[in-house]
Amino acid sequence: MPGPEKMSLNTATVKQQWDLKQCIEGAARHGIGAVSPWRDKLHEYGAEEARRMLDANGVAVSGLCRGGWYTGEGYLSEAVIDDNKRAVDEAATIGAACLVMVVGGLSPDSKDLVRARSLVSEGLAKTLDYARNAGVRIAIEPLHPMYAADRACFNTLGQALDLCDQLGEGIGVALDVYHCWWDPELESQIRRAGKDRLYAFHVCDWLNPTKDLLEDRGMMGDGVIDIPRLRGLVEAEGFDGFNEVEIFSAKDWWVRDPDEVLSILVERGRSAT
Amino acid sequence: MPGPEKMSLNTATVKQQWDLKQCIEGAARHGIGAVSPWRDKLHEYGAEEARRMLDANGVAVSGLCRGGWYTGEGYLSEAVIDDNKRAVDEAATIGAACLVMVVGGLSPDSKDLVRARSLVSEGLAKTLDYARNAGVRIAIEPLHPMYAADRACFNTLGQALDLCDQLGEGIGVALDVYHCWWDPELESQIRRAGKDRLYAFHVCDWLNPTKDLLEDRGMMGDGVIDIPRLRGLVEAEGFDGFNEVEIFSAKDWWVRDPDEVLSILVERGRSAT
Repeated sequence: MPGPEKMSLNTATVKQQWDLKQCIEGAARHGIGAVSPWRDKLHEYGAEEARRMLDANGVAVSGLCRGGWYTGEGYLSEAVIDDNKRAVDEAATIGAACLVMVVGGLSPDSKDLVRARSLVSEGLAKTLDYARNAGVRIAIEPLHPMYAADRACFNTLGQALDLCDQLGEGIGVALDVYHCWWDPELESQIRRAGKDRLYAFHVCDWLNPTKDLLEDRGMMGDGVIDIPRLRGLVEAEGFDGFNEVEIFSAKDWWVRDPDEVLSILVERGRSAT
Repeated sequence: MPGPEKMSLNTATVKQQWDLKQCIEGAARHGIGAVSPWRDKLHEYGAEEARRMLDANGVAVSGLCRGGWYTGEGYLSEAVIDDNKRAVDEAATIGAACLVMVVGGLSPDSKDLVRARSLVSEGLAKTLDYARNAGVRIAIEPLHPMYAADRACFNTLGQALDLCDQLGEGIGVALDVYHCWWDPELESQIRRAGKDRLYAFHVCDWLNPTKDLLEDRGMMGDGVIDIPRLRGLVEAEGFDGFNEVEIFSAKDWWVRDPDEVLSILVERGRSAT
């Protein structure tokens, strides 16, 4: 149902084909209302220049991907804390609706999930202090449980909201249907989140079969997720942000003509989102 | 820590190398206390002959894999119900500690998880009636959320226990560390299950990275799951069954000499389980 003006292009969807400028101009060309850059793309031009390009093209920013990764060194190093501060500054500069956090999985050579979660909690608290002063909202993105070891040790919406409860104002969630569609508590946890904590809504599809744990995600409508139902649930809470399309797809969408990808994205926004 | 007498060989672990007779005799040769056959292996000899081989070798049966798959035809067909009755009969004949249920994922051409779960609930109720009369315990195995589409729409221990609560006596859970290790509620849900509903405990390991969604599971100790901690949690509830090793591994354990697999399994029982 959503028209292109309510869609957002996460730069990961065409990461192999386009740089940041091409993503922004491509979004504008297709009438897509927003982009969500990954930081490596952002750094190709820098946040200031990115802001100028965004303004010139009338394109909003549904999020900046990504901060987090608090567990990567086994303790909260200055490097990790500083990098997250830079991410907050960049999010502020480009006017991102939120800074999306991929919090990190198990620390190297560790099997201790409890310790990993504790590092994440402590790290997010530090970043949040800084982000509040910068006027940037922090969005925890719970990732699918198949990424618990290597990417994020927060894996359900309920678990992410428990952490939000603990950390207070200025922190919410980025809900990605790919990561959360299977969760039997999803409906009740979306209600619990409410409009005030639903900072971002990401869409793509779960392909059946899925051939790769990371890079075989589908375009909306090509998989088994009832995306309109989930969009209905977040909109019933008052969410009125963008439907951000983030597709990791090494063998399909990353090797297509990017204008074709955006045309189909817009069509599937209308027909399958 | 567990010695071989407390380990069980799920026949899936050497499914490409051995038939049922070889699995039973191999287990006995390595001092392994039990096996858990898949039904295709069982049918190679039939349940009666299997029972004779098990008795002759002094090998117990920690479970029969698998019943379930209630969603496969989109409705509860007689064929599905009858096949589950046969599975119950086979479990009774071989003296299995439980019949393990892989309940089924989404029905063909359906995105309706709620409907799938409802089919499972209804199907399990029917099988349970039959199983109570046969004296066979039914174990729901919650599968990892990455199998929600194609194998099982029950994906957490808590969700499985909700269904057990609903269905009453004679139904419990098979807890596989591979499927559940990431769950933030695992500890509290193991307590909730208690000895009376912990029917089986399956072990293997989550490899990091994991290269295939189904057939890249690891031997205990080769991955990131803190298996001794999880075994400790179930044993704290009074579970005193077998540590059943079920490893799907197309490119590693399925192409090794099966006696080597069993030797390592026994060693890793002691050192990494």
